[in-house]
Amino acid sequence: MQNLKKRNVIVGQSGGPTSAINSSLAGVFRTAKERGYAKVYGMIHGVQGLMAGKYIDLSEHIQNGLDEELLKRTPAAYLGSCRYKLPKIHENMETFKKIFQILDDLEIDCFIYIGGNDSMDTIQKLSDYAILTGSEIRFVGCPKTIDNDLALTDHTPGYGSAAKYIGTSVKEVIRDGISMEMPHGMVSIVEIMGRNAGWLTGAAALAKGEDCPGPDAIYLPELPFDVDKFVAKCEDLLKVKNSVVVAVSEGIKTADGKYVSELGGGADYVDAFGHKQLTGTARYLADLLSSKLGCKTRAIELSTLQRAASHCASRVDILEAYEVGGAAMKAADEGDTGKMVVFVRTSDDPYQANTEVKDVHKIANDERLVPREWVNEEGDDVTPRFITYVRPLIQGDVAPIMVDGIPRHLAKPGFINML
Amino acid sequence: MQNLKKRNVIVGQSGGPTSAINSSLAGVFRTAKERGYAKVYGMIHGVQGLMAGKYIDLSEHIQNGLDEELLKRTPAAYLGSCRYKLPKIHENMETFKKIFQILDDLEIDCFIYIGGNDSMDTIQKLSDYAILTGSEIRFVGCPKTIDNDLALTDHTPGYGSAAKYIGTSVKEVIRDGISMEMPHGMVSIVEIMGRNAGWLTGAAALAKGEDCPGPDAIYLPELPFDVDKFVAKCEDLLKVKNSVVVAVSEGIKTADGKYVSELGGGADYVDAFGHKQLTGTARYLADLLSSKLGCKTRAIELSTLQRAASHCASRVDILEAYEVGGAAMKAADEGDTGKMVVFVRTSDDPYQANTEVKDVHKIANDERLVPREWVNEEGDDVTPRFITYVRPLIQGDVAPIMVDGIPRHLAKPGFINML
Repeated sequence: MQNLKKRNVIVGQSGGPTSAINSSLAGVFRTAKERGYAKVYGMIHGVQGLMAGKYIDLSEHIQNGLDEELLKRTPAAYLGSCRYKLPKIHENMETFKKIFQILDDLEIDCFIYIGGNDSMDTIQKLSDYAILTGSEIRFVGCPKTIDNDLALTDHTPGYGSAAKYIGTSVKEVIRDGISMEMPHGMVSIVEIMGRNAGWLTGAAALAKGEDCPGPDAIYLPELPFDVDKFVAKCEDLLKVKNSVVVAVSEGIKTADGKYVSELGGGADYVDAFGHKQLTGTARYLADLLSSKLGCKTRAIELSTLQRAASHCASRVDILEAYEVGGAAMKAADEGDTGKMVVFVRTSDDPYQANTEVKDVHKIANDERLVPREWVNEEGDDVTPRFITYVRPLIQGDVAPIMVDGIPRHLAKPGFINML
Repeated sequence: MQNLKKRNVIVGQSGGPTSAINSSLAGVFRTAKERGYAKVYGMIHGVQGLMAGKYIDLSEHIQNGLDEELLKRTPAAYLGSCRYKLPKIHENMETFKKIFQILDDLEIDCFIYIGGNDSMDTIQKLSDYAILTGSEIRFVGCPKTIDNDLALTDHTPGYGSAAKYIGTSVKEVIRDGISMEMPHGMVSIVEIMGRNAGWLTGAAALAKGEDCPGPDAIYLPELPFDVDKFVAKCEDLLKVKNSVVVAVSEGIKTADGKYVSELGGGADYVDAFGHKQLTGTARYLADLLSSKLGCKTRAIELSTLQRAASHCASRVDILEAYEVGGAAMKAADEGDTGKMVVFVRTSDDPYQANTEVKDVHKIANDERLVPREWVNEEGDDVTPRFITYVRPLIQGDVAPIMVDGIPRHLAKPGFINML
């Protein structure tokens, strides 16, 4: 299946931005060049941009080692991202014909897509179509998501850096709260991303240490959220401490399936994939507590900050993101298609994990949730097992390259986000 | 006025926490020890805790050089803070008698208070009372506030680190926005602290550089906010770019004096000093834009994070905070009372600033605002003069001391925030 004469590679980024997604891009680029491919194209805004004929020659933008280092430290998708789901092959063959025509015109041998569940769906459909039509283009997925919810992999690049930022920020919020004294106490609710999977919210527990009590409660979206028990717990906590800090997932739901953010009657918003966009879980709970308990409250949404905070990236995460980019390119070069690179952890301490490639059909559209036994019985904290899992992923730092006191990123690409 | 035999020092922290307030505490402690004082007491939760007899011997908590380094990297008031305003002397002489009795019992020569406007009011009243009663205790203020709104000083410790965090985070939010493509565009509104003074909000402009376009508009609280012009500006911006990022102060008001956060009909909350507590300026504007323009919006409140993010502290700020702590102690030791340490800047580039002591009567309760000429004519951006001012204050980093992947702080003092 390997071409003797190597032609070109194209790489794209898709889904929500992370601090590590560009490190994977750098890994793909480096390995493609090392393995002798002529050109490495970048899709602008993913497969959606590609269909509109938008792509660049990456060599014009990553010109030297410093550019590569800056790229590794640049948050969000350098090439631009998209949230576009391909139709089913039999429903709209034209879309696939169009994409393959563009790929053939560009003399593409390997197509690498960096993204999460929805992006792996794209890899699956394109590789299926290639088989149907006898195309020899190889399609390989490179995992990326702060949500850490991809199936079959131990974890996903992007998660470690977000977890490190969350642990660090929650620790700072706790210390801030401790320093104040409020007449009726204060409850700070920190709202963390993760619609269905509590990997990010659980990372709030990283704040706990010899110098910090950690959050007083953590609520993951995997378990039903009991509003009354929550209020009672906060009331009890306020009897013994002046400042209470609670971490909640944006996606917590009551037993009857209602998002807590909807209890206040807020508007819904559904994205292209049918996911509900949520806001205001922390705000709702904070308002509820102040009316029920008379305490001061704060609603703190980590929002975009938690997925873009490359100034606080994990070294393990950034290096692993680079590694999976290279591994995806290597797999495609060696003939794999319809595959995604995954991590298999062989040891927690010392931490060791290897990359493997797995069939993307077993991955796409399947969410990996936090195991029930990694949450305590009451459902309001993670267990030490969770910490053992996440701790290795946040180790080490990637010192930002500071210019004039602010972290430098690779130059804003003029080709994206313009009308 | 100097005692030949030196007795003890007491130091307290007051007002809103910052990333640098503990560095000043470390500076006071170090200089007091070097100048031969027997004990350095710390008030627990400021003068309010002191009145309840709450204080510690700081030597028991800062035992070595590593403790001091950790203290410099620990956000929020290590000793606990308070928001307590002393009565006027003639209104309640008993309060002052009580405080001075405690100070006399502790054999205090020097009283150092680290804080903002309200804390300088405390220094003023206590030093006035000392004069009235012939007490020889010296009272000196050490400036601290992320708001940077103290009179007579070029800037205040705490501001530089908050400004660095704001510039860094806004830059990351901009990059995140650029990477996405939204059908009808997206406007992200970043809400920044500062009731009346726009120093922090203006720091969003630090995001701008060769690699980043910077925020598209910046609205300080010093100028009236025109809602219609704001909507029109966003509409125009969305015609030429897909992602718009706007920085707003929490305290922006319309021409008739109404807080924007009140336009949505939210509840008011007034703190002990009669300040209105504001939330929801960004949320209100985001909801307004999505209804008027049909674009996607994001409301991002930097909230507590911006004043507690010691992981992203400015080296200039942390070192200057240490310096003013030492200078306050030195001034008190040398006989000054009723004074505050201030910075006098002698050069922007290379940056040079010296400490001086000024009469606290000229400082207390007087807010320093951003000069009108440091904002552009349209009132929606800061000028290069503003950047020249703030740039030196965010230079350099204070590498966190990382333990298990998370910044280490000085051990949580068991004596604060307990009931």
